[in-house]
Amino acid sequence: MSNRPFDLLSLGELLLRLSPAGVERLVRGDSFQKQVGGAELNVAVGAALLGLHTGVVTQLPSHDMGNFVKNKVRSYGISDDFFVYDHSSDARLGLYYYEYGAHPRKPKVIYDRKNSSFYGISVDSFPEDMYRAATCFHTTGITLALCENTRKTAIDMIRRFKSTGTIISFDVNFRGNLWTGEEARECIEQILPYVDIFFCSEDTARLTFQKTGTAREMMKSFTEDYPISIVASTQRVVHSPKSHTFGSVIYDAARDEYYEEEPYRNIDVVDRIGSGDAYIAGALYGLLSSGGDCMKAVRYGNAASALKNTIPGDLPTSDLEEMNMIIREHNQKGPQSEMSR
Amino acid sequence: MSNRPFDLLSLGELLLRLSPAGVERLVRGDSFQKQVGGAELNVAVGAALLGLHTGVVTQLPSHDMGNFVKNKVRSYGISDDFFVYDHSSDARLGLYYYEYGAHPRKPKVIYDRKNSSFYGISVDSFPEDMYRAATCFHTTGITLALCENTRKTAIDMIRRFKSTGTIISFDVNFRGNLWTGEEARECIEQILPYVDIFFCSEDTARLTFQKTGTAREMMKSFTEDYPISIVASTQRVVHSPKSHTFGSVIYDAARDEYYEEEPYRNIDVVDRIGSGDAYIAGALYGLLSSGGDCMKAVRYGNAASALKNTIPGDLPTSDLEEMNMIIREHNQKGPQSEMSR
Amino acid sequence: MSNRPFDLLSLGELLLRLSPAGVERLVRGDSFQKQVGGAELNVAVGAALLGLHTGVVTQLPSHDMGNFVKNKVRSYGISDDFFVYDHSSDARLGLYYYEYGAHPRKPKVIYDRKNSSFYGISVDSFPEDMYRAATCFHTTGITLALCENTRKTAIDMIRRFKSTGTIISFDVNFRGNLWTGEEARECIEQILPYVDIFFCSEDTARLTFQKTGTAREMMKSFTEDYPISIVASTQRVVHSPKSHTFGSVIYDAARDEYYEEEPYRNIDVVDRIGSGDAYIAGALYGLLSSGGDCMKAVRYGNAASALKNTIPGDLPTSDLEEMNMIIREHNQKGPQSEMSR
Amino acid sequence: MSNRPFDLLSLGELLLRLSPAGVERLVRGDSFQKQVGGAELNVAVGAALLGLHTGVVTQLPSHDMGNFVKNKVRSYGISDDFFVYDHSSDARLGLYYYEYGAHPRKPKVIYDRKNSSFYGISVDSFPEDMYRAATCFHTTGITLALCENTRKTAIDMIRRFKSTGTIISFDVNFRGNLWTGEEARECIEQILPYVDIFFCSEDTARLTFQKTGTAREMMKSFTEDYPISIVASTQRVVHSPKSHTFGSVIYDAARDEYYEEEPYRNIDVVDRIGSGDAYIAGALYGLLSSGGDCMKAVRYGNAASALKNTIPGDLPTSDLEEMNMIIREHNQKGPQSEMSR
Amino acid sequence: MSNRPFDLLSLGELLLRLSPAGVERLVRGDSFQKQVGGAELNVAVGAALLGLHTGVVTQLPSHDMGNFVKNKVRSYGISDDFFVYDHSSDARLGLYYYEYGAHPRKPKVIYDRKNSSFYGISVDSFPEDMYRAATCFHTTGITLALCENTRKTAIDMIRRFKSTGTIISFDVNFRGNLWTGEEARECIEQILPYVDIFFCSEDTARLTFQKTGTAREMMKSFTEDYPISIVASTQRVVHSPKSHTFGSVIYDAARDEYYEEEPYRNIDVVDRIGSGDAYIAGALYGLLSSGGDCMKAVRYGNAASALKNTIPGDLPTSDLEEMNMIIREHNQKGPQSEMSR
Amino acid sequence: MSNRPFDLLSLGELLLRLSPAGVERLVRGDSFQKQVGGAELNVAVGAALLGLHTGVVTQLPSHDMGNFVKNKVRSYGISDDFFVYDHSSDARLGLYYYEYGAHPRKPKVIYDRKNSSFYGISVDSFPEDMYRAATCFHTTGITLALCENTRKTAIDMIRRFKSTGTIISFDVNFRGNLWTGEEARECIEQILPYVDIFFCSEDTARLTFQKTGTAREMMKSFTEDYPISIVASTQRVVHSPKSHTFGSVIYDAARDEYYEEEPYRNIDVVDRIGSGDAYIAGALYGLLSSGGDCMKAVRYGNAASALKNTIPGDLPTSDLEEMNMIIREHNQKGPQSEMSR
Repeated sequence: MSNRPFDLLSLGELLLRLSPAGVERLVRGDSFQKQVGGAELNVAVGAALLGLHTGVVTQLPSHDMGNFVKNKVRSYGISDDFFVYDHSSDARLGLYYYEYGAHPRKPKVIYDRKNSSFYGISVDSFPEDMYRAATCFHTTGITLALCENTRKTAIDMIRRFKSTGTIISFDVNFRGNLWTGEEARECIEQILPYVDIFFCSEDTARLTFQKTGTAREMMKSFTEDYPISIVASTQRVVHSPKSHTFGSVIYDAARDEYYEEEPYRNIDVVDRIGSGDAYIAGALYGLLSSGGDCMKAVRYGNAASALKNTIPGDLPTSDLEEMNMIIREHNQKGPQSEMSR
Repeated sequence: MSNRPFDLLSLGELLLRLSPAGVERLVRGDSFQKQVGGAELNVAVGAALLGLHTGVVTQLPSHDMGNFVKNKVRSYGISDDFFVYDHSSDARLGLYYYEYGAHPRKPKVIYDRKNSSFYGISVDSFPEDMYRAATCFHTTGITLALCENTRKTAIDMIRRFKSTGTIISFDVNFRGNLWTGEEARECIEQILPYVDIFFCSEDTARLTFQKTGTAREMMKSFTEDYPISIVASTQRVVHSPKSHTFGSVIYDAARDEYYEEEPYRNIDVVDRIGSGDAYIAGALYGLLSSGGDCMKAVRYGNAASALKNTIPGDLPTSDLEEMNMIIREHNQKGPQSEMSR
Repeated sequence: MSNRPFDLLSLGELLLRLSPAGVERLVRGDSFQKQVGGAELNVAVGAALLGLHTGVVTQLPSHDMGNFVKNKVRSYGISDDFFVYDHSSDARLGLYYYEYGAHPRKPKVIYDRKNSSFYGISVDSFPEDMYRAATCFHTTGITLALCENTRKTAIDMIRRFKSTGTIISFDVNFRGNLWTGEEARECIEQILPYVDIFFCSEDTARLTFQKTGTAREMMKSFTEDYPISIVASTQRVVHSPKSHTFGSVIYDAARDEYYEEEPYRNIDVVDRIGSGDAYIAGALYGLLSSGGDCMKAVRYGNAASALKNTIPGDLPTSDLEEMNMIIREHNQKGPQSEMSR
Repeated sequence: MSNRPFDLLSLGELLLRLSPAGVERLVRGDSFQKQVGGAELNVAVGAALLGLHTGVVTQLPSHDMGNFVKNKVRSYGISDDFFVYDHSSDARLGLYYYEYGAHPRKPKVIYDRKNSSFYGISVDSFPEDMYRAATCFHTTGITLALCENTRKTAIDMIRRFKSTGTIISFDVNFRGNLWTGEEARECIEQILPYVDIFFCSEDTARLTFQKTGTAREMMKSFTEDYPISIVASTQRVVHSPKSHTFGSVIYDAARDEYYEEEPYRNIDVVDRIGSGDAYIAGALYGLLSSGGDCMKAVRYGNAASALKNTIPGDLPTSDLEEMNMIIREHNQKGPQSEMSR
Repeated sequence: MSNRPFDLLSLGELLLRLSPAGVERLVRGDSFQKQVGGAELNVAVGAALLGLHTGVVTQLPSHDMGNFVKNKVRSYGISDDFFVYDHSSDARLGLYYYEYGAHPRKPKVIYDRKNSSFYGISVDSFPEDMYRAATCFHTTGITLALCENTRKTAIDMIRRFKSTGTIISFDVNFRGNLWTGEEARECIEQILPYVDIFFCSEDTARLTFQKTGTAREMMKSFTEDYPISIVASTQRVVHSPKSHTFGSVIYDAARDEYYEEEPYRNIDVVDRIGSGDAYIAGALYGLLSSGGDCMKAVRYGNAASALKNTIPGDLPTSDLEEMNMIIREHNQKGPQSEMSR
Repeated sequence: MSNRPFDLLSLGELLLRLSPAGVERLVRGDSFQKQVGGAELNVAVGAALLGLHTGVVTQLPSHDMGNFVKNKVRSYGISDDFFVYDHSSDARLGLYYYEYGAHPRKPKVIYDRKNSSFYGISVDSFPEDMYRAATCFHTTGITLALCENTRKTAIDMIRRFKSTGTIISFDVNFRGNLWTGEEARECIEQILPYVDIFFCSEDTARLTFQKTGTAREMMKSFTEDYPISIVASTQRVVHSPKSHTFGSVIYDAARDEYYEEEPYRNIDVVDRIGSGDAYIAGALYGLLSSGGDCMKAVRYGNAASALKNTIPGDLPTSDLEEMNMIIREHNQKGPQSEMSR
C-alpha cells in the first residue's frame, strides 16, 4: 500500500440502530438493543478488522449520543480524526428501527434519519490534507441520496480525493425509499467518470442503469462507458430470513477477466444487515492489500459477507485470523473440525 | 357488518403464561416471561388487529394480576366492557407454564388454572343488552370443559346470543387433559344446534365425533346433522418444533363448496401456541368483513396462523397491513423483496 | 361530572423515551428501555387511573412506532379516539434520551423531537364534536413552545373548547430549552383569559411572569389579572436525585382561600420525570370528581406526585385504591403496617 | 449436638415467588424473577448455611415446577429426604406475587397458594423414623393457618416429634390474611404445651395472645403458662422500605435472664422478606450449636436477619464465615475496612 | 446394583463456563452467562437425573466461586461428599470461555484452567473408604492430560477403585490442545488394563491408537488387547452448528456382539457441549441399572445425547420420565403429538 | 504540555471484571457483567476523558478475551500502541470477581490474576522511543507487587522514562493481599528517588512507611526524604457502601503549600472501585494541563472521584464538560437546577 496514513477513508452517516431483542416486535416490548451502523461505517469497520488503517468522514451531534457512536466506532480501531461535531441545539443522531424476520414474516426497517447532523455536513469543516491522507476513498449512493447537501458534499469530496490520486470506490446501494431509479442514475452518472472500483448488483444494473444482457455483460459495459477498473457484483439467494446463499463475481477491466468462486451455502443468517457492506470491506481489503488481486477480493469479500450474516448488528467482528480460517475451510474438501478449541 | 356495537365477542378464561426465555427450561433458570393468553382471547385479539371491534366476556381477580391482564388486553384495543371482577379473598388468576421445544424435545405445558376466578363466572354478572351487542359470539370447548359452572354459563350464553340473531362460532379445541372424548362429544352435541360456524380438526372429527370417511366428507356431515353453515378444518404438518406447514379447508354448506389454497410451507416457528386461534381470528375476519366469503376466510385464516407462529406469546401482533402484505407475497409467483424497508 | 363522554381531554405530543437501565449511562451500554411519555399524556394517564374517562388529542406516525405508542397508551385505558396518523414518508415519532442521576451527578435529558409528526398537527383533522366531548381540556406550555404550528393549533383548540363551556386547564411547564421566558410570557398571556385552572410554579411566576411578593400573593395576583378560578403551585425540595420532599398550595379565587397539607418527605425517588404531571392528574381528579373541592385536589395531587416519583418511566401506575391507601397513611399518626399483604 | 442424622427439620409449604425486577410493578412489565421461599424453608436454609444439617418436610407437585423447587432447595444443601410428591392431575405449586416498595409506596404481596399440593400433605406419607431423625423440629403459625388438613398434620407431627425427645421450635408468624387473632390464639394454645423454643413478636403477644405489661414481662409470662424454655422476640424499626433497624431479646426461662445486644442500624434493605425467618435460623443455630447459649442465639439471629435484608429473595445466602465477619464488625469499635478484599 | 452407597463416582475438574448469550461474541458485549461444566461432572449429572446415586471427586477453591460451583452441582442432586477445598491464597476455579457458532462460523472455546485448584488434587485428601463407596468409577483422558499431578492422582485412584472390585469406566475424550496423540496413547495404555467400559470415538481409535480396519473391528480389537468388557463409540454428523445427527455402536466382548439403533436425525442443536458426556451418562445408566444390557445402554446413551444437544450449558436436565418419552417416540412409527400437554 | 506525542502513559495490568448485576451474589445467579479494569488503566481512561492523550503499556493474551479488552479500552480513546500480545498457549487474562455490598454486608473482591499474560511482560517487547513518547509516566504499587518480573520491569521502565525527562507519577495503592507492608516499603523506597508526583493515603504513610505526625506532616516528610515535587493524599469517609464523603489534600514542595477544598458529601455510591484511580486521573489532568497548578489538581481530582463513585464498573465516563459542570455546582452557593435538560 501507499505511504499515506490511511488505507481507506469512507464518507457516510453513522446511525443509531434500535432493535427489539431476538424475536420481539417493534410494536411491543420494553427494550431496544442500542447499536451503531451505516453503510460506509460498516465498510470501514470490516476493513479495519482485517488490518487496514481506516477512518470515517462524518458529522455527529456533539451530545452524549454522538459520543456513544464515537466510542463504539473507536472500539473497532477506526479513526475518528475526521469526525466533525454539530453543536447546534437541533443536533440529532439519525436512527433507524429494525425488526428481525421469521418466515413468512420479513425483516422490517423504519428510518428516522431526516435532518440528522450528518445532513449538514460541509466540505469546509475538513482540512485540505485529508484528501491526501488515504490510498482509497469509499462512499455509496445512500450519501448521494440523503439530501441536496450531502450529495453536493459527496461529489465534491470524490473530485478532491480523485485529484490527489486516491482510488475511488463506490457502491450504488440503491434504496427506493430515498430516491427514484432515474434520480439515482442521473446523479451517479456524474460521478462514474471518477470511480475506480464499482459495486453494483445485477438488479440495479438492469433496473436503474437500464443495462441489458447477462450479468457479466452488464458488468463489463460499465467499464466500457467509464474509466472504471473493477466492477463487483454480489449474488444473494434468500431461502428464508434465516438461510441464505452468498457469492459474487468481480470483473477486472485491465485483464478483461471475471473472478468467481463457489458461493457460501446454508448460511445461518442471524442478521443480514451490513452483509453487503462486509462484502465490500473484504473485497477492498483483498484489492488494497495485494495491489489489485481480484481473486483475493472475491475470497475475502465472500467470506466477510458470509460471516457478517452470522453476527448481530450492522458491524462485522471477524478479524483476519477468523477470516482466513473460514476461507481455508471453504476451500477444503475433507472432513472438518466442528469447533475452534 | 351489522350495526351492533361489537363485531365479535368471545367468552373465555384469560390466563397468565409463564415461560422461561428462549431455550431455558422450567426446572432451571431465574426468570419467567410474563405473558397473557387464552384461546378465546387470542381470537378476539387477532380479529381486532385486522379491524374488527371485539371484546372478551370473562371474570378476573380484582387484584394487581387481574389488572395486569386487563392492561395487556386493552393494549390490543380489545374492549374490557364485559370484564367482571372477583373481589373474594380466594380470587386467583389461572396460569400455565410453557417451555419451548427443540427437536427431539417437545414443547411442554403445565396448567394451574383450577378454581381460578373464571371458574366462578355467572350469567347474572352481565347485562341483558350484552346479548344484542355483537354480530358474532365465539367460544370453545375449553370453556365447556373447565368445570360444571363454566359449562352451564357458556351454554346459557350461547342460547341467549343465538336468540337475538347473533352468529355463533364454536371451536372444539379438544384437550384430553380437561375431559374425555366422550364427555366432549356429549356436551358439544348439545350446542351444535346453535352453531353457525364450526371449527373442528380432522383428528377430532374422527376420534371425538367418531366420524368416518375423508376429511371433506366428515366436514360436510356436520352440516347434514346440524344447521351449521360453515365448517373449517386446519391442517398442520409438524416437521420439527421449529418448522411447520399450515393450511386449511373451509366448507360452505349453502353453496356445498370447499375452499382451499396452497398451504404455507417452511414456517419458521417461534411459538406455535395460539396459532390455531389466530387461524380462527383470520377466518372470522374474512367471513364477517365480507358477509361470508369463505375464500377470504381461508386466505386470512392461513396467513394469520402462519404469522402467529413467528411471534412469541399466545397473542398475534399482525395488523391488516402486514397480513395483506403476507397474503400478497404468498400468492405472488415472481421474485420477492427480502425486507420491508 | 357533566354528561359529556370524556371527563378530560389533553392535547400534546407523545414521545418515545429511551433510557439506559438503572445506573448505566447514555454514552455506554448495549440497551435502552423503551418507554412512552409526554407531559399531557402523563396527566391523562394519571387521571384515568383514578377513574376519570380521559383521552389524548395528538398526531402520531402511522408506522410501527406510532402503533407501539398507541398500544402502550391504550393499555392504560386512555382513549385513542382523537389520535390522528401521519402517513407521510417523513412521519417520525419525537423522542428523548434520559439518564438517571446519582449525587453529585444529575439526571440528564436530550431531546430529539423536532419535526415529529406532532409538529404537523392540524385542527382540520379533528371532528367538530370533539369540542363538546369533554368536561375539561388540558394542555401545557410545551405544546405552545414546540413550533409555530402547534402553538396556533393549541390556541385555536383552547378557544374552541372554551366556547362550548369546557373547563380549561393549563400548566405553564416552562422549558428554557424550548423558548425564552419572554416568549413564554407573551404567548401565555394570550391564553390566560381562557384559563380556569392554572398550574404555575413559584419560580416561573417570579422569573417568567415577573410577579413579586410571596408565593401566595403571586398565585392570587393571577386571578386578579385574569378570570382564573384556581391556581395551583407545587413545591419540590431536591435533597438528592434519590430523595425529594413534595407539597403544594392551591388557591381558590371564588372562596379566596389557600389549601395546603403536610408535604410528603423522604420520598424514595426512582424517577422524577412526570411527577409534576402526576400532580396535575391528581389535582384535576380531585377537582373534577368533587365539583371543585380544592382540598381534595391538594390531597390527590400530592399523593399522586409522591407515588409517581417511586415508579420508573414518565407514566404513573397508581389506581384509586392505592392512592387512597397512601393518603390514609399520610394522614394517620399511629404505627403503620410495613407491607400490603 | 445429638447423634441424630439431622440437626433441624422444619415443616412447611414451599412457594414459588414471582416478583418484577427492581422497581417494576406487578401491573406492568414483561418478566418475573422466579424464586423459591416459604417461612419454614427459609429457616432450614439459613441454618444449613451456618453448618447445621437440615431438611424440610413438605409435599410438592410431581411436575417440573416441583422439580424446580427441589433443585433450588438442594442447591443450598438442604435435604429432600422428606419431600413427598403429589402425582394428581390437580397438583399445583403454591405461589405468591411480590412487589418491592419505595417510600411512600409499600411492598406488596398477593398470595395464590390455596389448594396447593402442600394442602393435601398427610402424616401417612412419611416414615415413622422421621420422628427420631432430628435434634429439633420447627414449624410456624402459617402451616397451622393454611387449612384444616395442614393444621391437623402439623399438630400431629409436633406431638410425634416431641414424643421422641425432639426439641420443638415454633414461630407464631401471625398473618391476618390467613386467620383471625382469635383463631390463631385458640389453635396455638393447643400446641404451646409441646413447645420448647417460642418465637413471638411484641405486637402478637399483645394483640393475639392478649398479654399485657412490658415486652419482657409478656415474654416471661409465656414460660409461666407453658413449659417453654426460651422465648425470642424481634424488634424491627422500619424507617422506610429501604432502611430498617433490627434487634431482638431472648428470654431464658431456666436462668430467668434476658439477652440482648445493640441492634443493627441503617440496614440497607434490599428485600425484607424472610429476614424474620433468617433471625430464627441464626437463633436456632446459636442455640443448637452451643447447647442453649442464648447470647450466641441473639448474636447469630440478629446478624442473620440484618444480612438477609441485604439479599434479594426469601432465602439467605450467608455462610458461617460471612456471619462471623459481620458479628465481629458489629462488635468492633475502631475503624473498619470498607471492603472484603 | 450393588449395595455400595454410590452407583457412580467420577473424578474430574469442575469448570466455570462463561458464554455470551445467544449470538453475541466473546470480543463484544457486556455480559456473560455463568455456568458450570466439566466432562466428568456432566456424566455424573446425567446419570443422577436418570436415577443413579452419583458423586464427583474433585478439588475446588474454598472461596465464593467454589461455593457457587458446589451449589450448582448440589442442585442436580449430586453428592459433594468428595469435594475437597483449596484454602490457599492462590486457589482458583478453572474456567473456559465459550462462543456459540452459526454456519459458517464455528463454536469457539478458550480455556483458562491452568493451575486451578484441581491441578493440586491429592489422593491424601480423600478417605480410604471412598474406594469402596461406588459400583462404578469414571474418569476421562482430560484428567490424565491436565498435568503431571492430576495424571498421577487419576491413575492411582483408578488402581485403588479397581482393587475393590469397582467397575472402571473411561472416556478417551482426546483433546489436541492438552497433549499430543502419542502422549495420550502412551498414558492411556497404562490404564487400559484396569478399564471395564471404554468410550472411544472412531477417529481417536484410528489416529491416536493407530488402529486400522472398520469402526467395528477397531472397537473389538481393544477388547482383544485388554481385559475390556464393553467398548462404546459415538457417531456424530455435523450438518451445521445447529443441526446434527447422532448415533452410536456398543460392543459387548463377552457376547461378541454389536448393538446399534437408528440414529437421532435433525437434532435442533442448541448447545453441543457436553452431549458426548450425556451419552456416557445414558450409557452407564443403561448398563448399571440393568446389569450390563448394552441395548439399553445404546438407547439411553443416544437419547441422552440427543436431548442434551437441545439444552444450553454443559449439564443435561432430562430426567428418566423425559428420557423414556423421547425413547418411546424415537421407536414409534405412527403420528406423534407435537406437544407435552 | 510538551510536544511529546502522549501526555500520559501508564504501566499496568488490564483485568476482566466479573460482577453479578445489582444486588445478586457471587454464590448464586446465572450471569456476570463483563467489564474491564485495572488501577493504571483507570487512570489513563480518566485522564483521556478530560482531554489528555494517553496510552497504556501492558501485555495481553492474543486470543478473543485480549481483543475484548483492547476493544473496550480503545472505545475510551486510549492508545493501544504499547499493547504487546502473548501468543503462548498459556496466555490468560487476569480477572477478578466483584460483588456489591449493602450495609452491613461489604463489597467483596476475589482475584484470579496470577500468571496472567501481564506477569510475563518484558522491557524487550517495547521500542526504545516509547521512553521519549510521554510527558508523564504513571504506575502503582500493584504492578510492583504482582511478581518478581513485573517489579523488575516496572522499576526498569521508571528509570528509563525518568532518564528522558519524563515526569514520574506513582500511586502506592497498598494491597495487603499482594505483599506485606514491609515488602512494599522496601521496594517502593527504591523508586521514590525517581518519583515526581506521589499518591499516598494517610493510613499507608503511617502503617507502611511508618511515618508519624499529622497527615500534612507526613506528606511533607516524603518530599524531605526524596526529590518528590508533589504529594497527594485522599480522604474518604465511608458512611455505608452506598454513601461516602470524599476530599483530598495536595502538597506542593516547591511552594511549601497545601491545597484543599470542601469535600464532596453524600455521594450516592454506585460503585466505589476505581474512584481512587479517578482521583489520580483528575489530579494528573489538573497538573499536566496547567503546568503544575495544585489547586486545579485538587478540584479535578475530587470531582473525578466523586463522579466515578456514581458510575458502575472500574472505568470513569465523565468528560471535561460534565466535570466542569460538577465543579461549578460544587463551588456554587445558590439554588441549583435538578436536571441537565
